[in-house]
Amino acid sequence: SIWDWHRLPQYVDPRYTDYARANASIGINGTVLTNVNANALLITPMYLEKVKVLADLFRPYNLKVYLTARFSAPMEIGGLKTADPLDPEVRQWWKTKVDEIYKYVPDFGGFVVKANSEGQPGPQNYSRTHADGANMLAEAVAPHNGIVMWRAFVYDSNVPDDRAKQAYSEFKPLDGKFNDNVIVQVKNGPIDFMPREPVHPLFGAMKTTPLMMELQITQEYLGQATTLVFLPMLWKENIDQADLKKSNALKAICGVSNIGNDRNWTGHLFGQSNWYGFGRLAWDYETSSLEIANDWTRMTFTNNNDVVKDISWMMITSHETVVKYMTPLGLHHIMGANHHFGPGPWVSKMSRSDWTSTYYHKADSLGIGFNRTSTGSNAIEQYSPETQKKFNDEKFLLWFNHVPWDHKMKSGQTLWDEICTNYAAGVEEVKGLQKTWSSLASNIDADRFKHVTMLLERQKDEAELWRNSCILYFQTFSKRALPNGVDTGNKPLEYYINLSYPYAPGIRPRW
Amino acid sequence: SIWDWHRLPQYVDPRYTDYARANASIGINGTVLTNVNANALLITPMYLEKVKVLADLFRPYNLKVYLTARFSAPMEIGGLKTADPLDPEVRQWWKTKVDEIYKYVPDFGGFVVKANSEGQPGPQNYSRTHADGANMLAEAVAPHNGIVMWRAFVYDSNVPDDRAKQAYSEFKPLDGKFNDNVIVQVKNGPIDFMPREPVHPLFGAMKTTPLMMELQITQEYLGQATTLVFLPMLWKENIDQADLKKSNALKAICGVSNIGNDRNWTGHLFGQSNWYGFGRLAWDYETSSLEIANDWTRMTFTNNNDVVKDISWMMITSHETVVKYMTPLGLHHIMGANHHFGPGPWVSKMSRSDWTSTYYHKADSLGIGFNRTSTGSNAIEQYSPETQKKFNDEKFLLWFNHVPWDHKMKSGQTLWDEICTNYAAGVEEVKGLQKTWSSLASNIDADRFKHVTMLLERQKDEAELWRNSCILYFQTFSKRALPNGVDTGNKPLEYYINLSYPYAPGIRPRW
Repeated sequence: SIWDWHRLPQYVDPRYTDYARANASIGINGTVLTNVNANALLITPMYLEKVKVLADLFRPYNLKVYLTARFSAPMEIGGLKTADPLDPEVRQWWKTKVDEIYKYVPDFGGFVVKANSEGQPGPQNYSRTHADGANMLAEAVAPHNGIVMWRAFVYDSNVPDDRAKQAYSEFKPLDGKFNDNVIVQVKNGPIDFMPREPVHPLFGAMKTTPLMMELQITQEYLGQATTLVFLPMLWKENIDQADLKKSNALKAICGVSNIGNDRNWTGHLFGQSNWYGFGRLAWDYETSSLEIANDWTRMTFTNNNDVVKDISWMMITSHETVVKYMTPLGLHHIMGANHHFGPGPWVSKMSRSDWTSTYYHKADSLGIGFNRTSTGSNAIEQYSPETQKKFNDEKFLLWFNHVPWDHKMKSGQTLWDEICTNYAAGVEEVKGLQKTWSSLASNIDADRFKHVTMLLERQKDEAELWRNSCILYFQTFSKRALPNGVDTGNKPLEYYINLSYPYAPGIRPRW
Repeated sequence: SIWDWHRLPQYVDPRYTDYARANASIGINGTVLTNVNANALLITPMYLEKVKVLADLFRPYNLKVYLTARFSAPMEIGGLKTADPLDPEVRQWWKTKVDEIYKYVPDFGGFVVKANSEGQPGPQNYSRTHADGANMLAEAVAPHNGIVMWRAFVYDSNVPDDRAKQAYSEFKPLDGKFNDNVIVQVKNGPIDFMPREPVHPLFGAMKTTPLMMELQITQEYLGQATTLVFLPMLWKENIDQADLKKSNALKAICGVSNIGNDRNWTGHLFGQSNWYGFGRLAWDYETSSLEIANDWTRMTFTNNNDVVKDISWMMITSHETVVKYMTPLGLHHIMGANHHFGPGPWVSKMSRSDWTSTYYHKADSLGIGFNRTSTGSNAIEQYSPETQKKFNDEKFLLWFNHVPWDHKMKSGQTLWDEICTNYAAGVEEVKGLQKTWSSLASNIDADRFKHVTMLLERQKDEAELWRNSCILYFQTFSKRALPNGVDTGNKPLEYYINLSYPYAPGIRPRW
């Protein structure tokens, strides 16, 4: 976050204005100031004074302010004994609170809510539904034309079923039960911002409830700020699968921001292209990724057509490259524990089984992959027959199927060999990015050239880390030799298992 | 910290070079890369590769690299069953580890150690002394001309005595027992970087052991990055009390850095003057604060003599101003709990009594202050008679004495009135800083003028917060009326007690 809540409201960082201008320039018209794991203090006067300063600053740029609402706020800051959404006192408390917020911010946009998810409180604490909770808040903001964005990112550790199915199972029955000013906010895929996922099954399933797609601009599972990956390629894949024009479901798009206090905003210079690309797609989701890449490159570097072509090629191919060396062929959620950086297919002991890697890849002596067909969890049934056809592609193979190691792939290789050659190809493709970038030395200013050069070297090392450790780990199940030309370095699997990342982003520094 | 440990060694931020140049320009010749609360991982190959990159970068600037050593590293990363400093295997482990470090960094400077302090492991875990622990490490680095800086910041929660006495009690008996390449690192005062402290009693008491003074450049207890306070005034006071020339004790000076990823390095522009001033004093501790303030102002803003005079005046007076509105007349350690920002004289319940405020101010119906005379803890006896005389000043009154509310001060006022008028004067003096700064509008560029203007407004609000809450709190003991002209705002004490600072620096953000 770039908001210095401590120094607000008196100290207003000049970057706040730059932030608003940048968003306005690419068509972004709203901002949620805080993380979805909400703190009730945010809607107390001391913090509303800070929010007001930002809202006043953003208003000329048409950037509307939204806040996250902590469902238990009536108890935590209101002194009530319950936060039950059907309790009249609770409903009145929210109405009064909302009226107070609008005194500070007359054009306040409304609330985003993460409820009954990953430890956050919610209406189910009182045996009420998500609709009950959302409608209570919706009622409070409705007189002011506010909206409620209610997140569908829920999964219950006590449900012995496929995590990928749970949001659908909980929200589909509620279709039509939400007030008019509620939008259900659904992640692009059913798990959690993986390098590649099939589209979330709620798109297409919710017939009357407005939906909005939540994308992740920050690369939580895609190498964070050390990886060059152009995300519009990923987003467009899911937007296309959702067939939005037909379903007419998408009423908004939001994204988890990737900006911070780095001088270049995003840490990796190419991270800026994802902020930019998000804005372009939120404005018009039919814009092609190539057009976005070209425009960004021209505005960022040069109008030299040869250079634009090379850089755009790097961007356009980068997503598939990352998928190859991280999670090829439909693999997913095999990153390290706690941090979400780096490989961890061996993670098997967590407080919840659906936080482990083994829950997802299910590698055994016979094969690998999560059977989500009718003989397995049947998650596939949550999609229309037409959408199901879209997943009939080897890139989703191990997402939906547990497949024998010797399964013959379209290439003629066995599955095992194909997994290995994917990891190897991912590394080679990063070397290709390095080679292309090197050739541009005379066309790019020295500072930014060096910045990207260093980061690509890092990305190559990370790609090798994924390749070596994942192949060595899966080999303990497949018991098969490596195909010709596939290298896993000179270190044993144990070396990779013992690596520790106390400084990975999202980890609290320990020194 | 500005080190991006995650992206090192491949990604080397250009700021690292700027950092080295800036230090070299003011005579700073060493840097400890990590916090004293050490992580053993730091001295494993994965991190030593990162350290090497920094050391190589700093070498041309004559900036030597030091590391913090975690005392239990032989167990945590070495697989030994003990870290007992007299165990031959442990001693050998450290020698081998040190040899390894010097392969990465041939001119490695040595270790800083925080042992048996605030939860850190140390030699006392094995019934050994600090000298035993320090000498073991000293022996390991000696063949490479390395040194060990062993911190004297220790206080045991089980000792029912005055925390201010403990470092002396533990280290004085060890005088002469340290190897030649050990320096004992002693904070400027006996508690912990308070706005004002008497000098640490170990200066002057250690006759043969080399000492170094540890200063705090970052303003942990002085309003952090929202407060304009020129710290050379504070440091010089303690350096002068230590009478270093006579004792010949000071072999080095180190400081806890105040730099971070802010574009201006220090958050508050005037924080730069403390980094600069630290370098100047480390180079020559007899330089006057006024000279430092003048030089910094000329290099930072202008050579216009009138402006230089005004800004230097702001700087030179700022320390006394902050003492007045935070901890006048020898009060200390009355800040909020957990965060060290803002007032908290009411803090009385912590896991250790010597982390509370009431332990230090001891306000009661009779008076206020910590009796450290012969009728009390007798901490005063740890100083030579000559040094004791230096504390015979009302500015140390409540540090050493419990004083009746009606005690007559030199001004003719009672102690109670004097406390109140100090707090009130502190606020007025901040308003004076604002007035002076405002008058310079035409002499300072608009961006920096606004930056400081906003921060001074914040500082005024914080000064009022200290004044109002401290006077109202102490009044519950003194039961006396406010002197004429002293205002405490329109809020009750409870309001201040209930304020919460989830975003104060040092607190992990909760949203």
